[in-house]
Amino acid sequence: MANIETCPPLSRASVEAAAHRIKGKTHQTPVMSSRYIDSLASTAQARENLLNSEWNGQEPACPRLHILFKCENFQKIGAFKPRGAFNAILRYEEERKKFLRSSGSESRSLLPIRIISHSSGNHAQAVALAAGELGYEAHIVMPSVSTPAKIAATRGYGATVHFSGSTPQERLAVVDKLMGEEAFENVFVSPYDHPDTLLGQGTLGLELQDQSKILLPDQDLHGIITPCQGTGIQVFGSEPWFEGADDCRRGLCEGKRVEVVRSMSIADGLRTPVGEIPWDVISDPENVKGLFSVTEDQIRDALGLILQQMKIVVEPSSAVPLAVALYNEDFRRLIQNECQVRGLHVYNLGLVVSGGNFDILQLSQMLQ
Amino acid sequence: MANIETCPPLSRASVEAAAHRIKGKTHQTPVMSSRYIDSLASTAQARENLLNSEWNGQEPACPRLHILFKCENFQKIGAFKPRGAFNAILRYEEERKKFLRSSGSESRSLLPIRIISHSSGNHAQAVALAAGELGYEAHIVMPSVSTPAKIAATRGYGATVHFSGSTPQERLAVVDKLMGEEAFENVFVSPYDHPDTLLGQGTLGLELQDQSKILLPDQDLHGIITPCQGTGIQVFGSEPWFEGADDCRRGLCEGKRVEVVRSMSIADGLRTPVGEIPWDVISDPENVKGLFSVTEDQIRDALGLILQQMKIVVEPSSAVPLAVALYNEDFRRLIQNECQVRGLHVYNLGLVVSGGNFDILQLSQMLQ
Repeated sequence: MANIETCPPLSRASVEAAAHRIKGKTHQTPVMSSRYIDSLASTAQARENLLNSEWNGQEPACPRLHILFKCENFQKIGAFKPRGAFNAILRYEEERKKFLRSSGSESRSLLPIRIISHSSGNHAQAVALAAGELGYEAHIVMPSVSTPAKIAATRGYGATVHFSGSTPQERLAVVDKLMGEEAFENVFVSPYDHPDTLLGQGTLGLELQDQSKILLPDQDLHGIITPCQGTGIQVFGSEPWFEGADDCRRGLCEGKRVEVVRSMSIADGLRTPVGEIPWDVISDPENVKGLFSVTEDQIRDALGLILQQMKIVVEPSSAVPLAVALYNEDFRRLIQNECQVRGLHVYNLGLVVSGGNFDILQLSQMLQ
Repeated sequence: MANIETCPPLSRASVEAAAHRIKGKTHQTPVMSSRYIDSLASTAQARENLLNSEWNGQEPACPRLHILFKCENFQKIGAFKPRGAFNAILRYEEERKKFLRSSGSESRSLLPIRIISHSSGNHAQAVALAAGELGYEAHIVMPSVSTPAKIAATRGYGATVHFSGSTPQERLAVVDKLMGEEAFENVFVSPYDHPDTLLGQGTLGLELQDQSKILLPDQDLHGIITPCQGTGIQVFGSEPWFEGADDCRRGLCEGKRVEVVRSMSIADGLRTPVGEIPWDVISDPENVKGLFSVTEDQIRDALGLILQQMKIVVEPSSAVPLAVALYNEDFRRLIQNECQVRGLHVYNLGLVVSGGNFDILQLSQMLQ
């Protein structure tokens, strides 16, 4: 990736530059809504539903919510990750050209460039796709326990797959070996812990904001629930609660990042702990207004609602923000309060859904 | 409904008039494609796949197909049926105004109008929605064995639900009783056996044709697989094979409409036999170029592909046309032959998918 020292800051202007950079490489995905889900979200939960929760015996909140689903399940590869992959590789190209120009040297251009990354999921396919479309070889390190479908999909985009053990250390060992091969100019694309990747992913927030201006011409988009960053809009984080997957929320309570998580939450895209750079963003209250977690049953219910009412297939992780909007009383009270304080008739809430990490058998078992 | 004697013919001009009539009442639904599904459809089947079929030992066909999915799962109520319901009610209004004007009489306008229909599925919700949006009361006769979700959805659109036994005779007895109530002007909307309903449904073919001109500016849409009618485009019919649900194909062989079908195919929207008016259209070889059936396993495979690759939820019946395109060798040979004879590089095939008749538990069991 481009040298982290010379990277643009995580600002709105940088996200706009990234959006300009990747334009035409990624799809502008649609924004959808469901009257049924809006009415459900705008109705107080039954008191019985709160019986076994921390809100037992309390008055259920009744916010008025209009939810805009940003459908990144229709993005290339079925997830938002190509945004980051394209931005990272294109940024590298820019920096490389600058370097060659300034040094007057052609020496770096003699070796063939290859793109290297590691991932067990969507990022693997995203890097394979982006590298291929930009004319580079991709080498992706995947844990040997990855599902055959994911390995086949990554190869389907033209990448060479290298296998590793499943711990981060084992993955990185194989990456290091590849990076050391001197016959190539080896370019590493980080799955999440690099500004260029993050700024690329951030473009979906910008796109949602632009689309919401068209969909809601006289209104604002008031908030979004997602890990991505935004400006002028309230941003909320959401996590599974199961087996400690709520590492961000716990990290905020304890004042430092939780570095190890071992959760088998059905929201498999949200099992790993938050990276260092995202943590710096999330732990700043200027950026993220709150972090909320939900139970596995709540994730399952929200997933069923999205399938049934919106007729779109999303991965379980993508149901976590909707579960927060529907079932987390802390969040719902906060929104109810926002509406009162700001005199809003309805709170327009954006949610990003992604569909890449989805196995049909697993999904059908989950819904039984 | 409007008097069948004065109904417009089942022609392209009538479908265009219907499209104009319902404009703004129904959504223009998106058209989607999948590179993965196209490459699958354009690859010859393995010979082993034909082992237990009528094509055992024969050379598998290898047509080149580009498939356009017309996504009526994103239509109001999740299915194409509101097109027919709106057209039927609006046509009735027009005829009524004409009658009042010509007779100079106001007598028919004294009684409150109410819309009556019967359905166990999407049509019930479609009529409830259309009647409500046009300002009328809706009374829908549903078999008492209908799923609670479907009854609730129909009521959710403001209709009064009346229950009946599950045979056509039992349903119609309750309809007749309602139609006889003299305090109202009772308007019956047929689920399928009336030109106004059919012409409304036909608007989706027109819409697909218009959209394909934008998506494929220098090419034609060569064919569609669907029960709806079209002009200038080859139309193919598709059915489940299980327990005799291929009644159209059998009817064509025997030279007369099959009137009774008892099939429990997973394609539950295609279990009933074809209606009289649709039969007149389908049995004319000018209209429908061929009828093809597929097995339950093939329907299940095609359904899984749509969910996994396209990230959209459709009802099992909607997977039948894709199953024909992927697995029916008679169809595939015919397309291969068309390409050769007409010198086509690729055959552009439209498929209509609908998502209304979808139960999440049933679906997840089906996919196991």
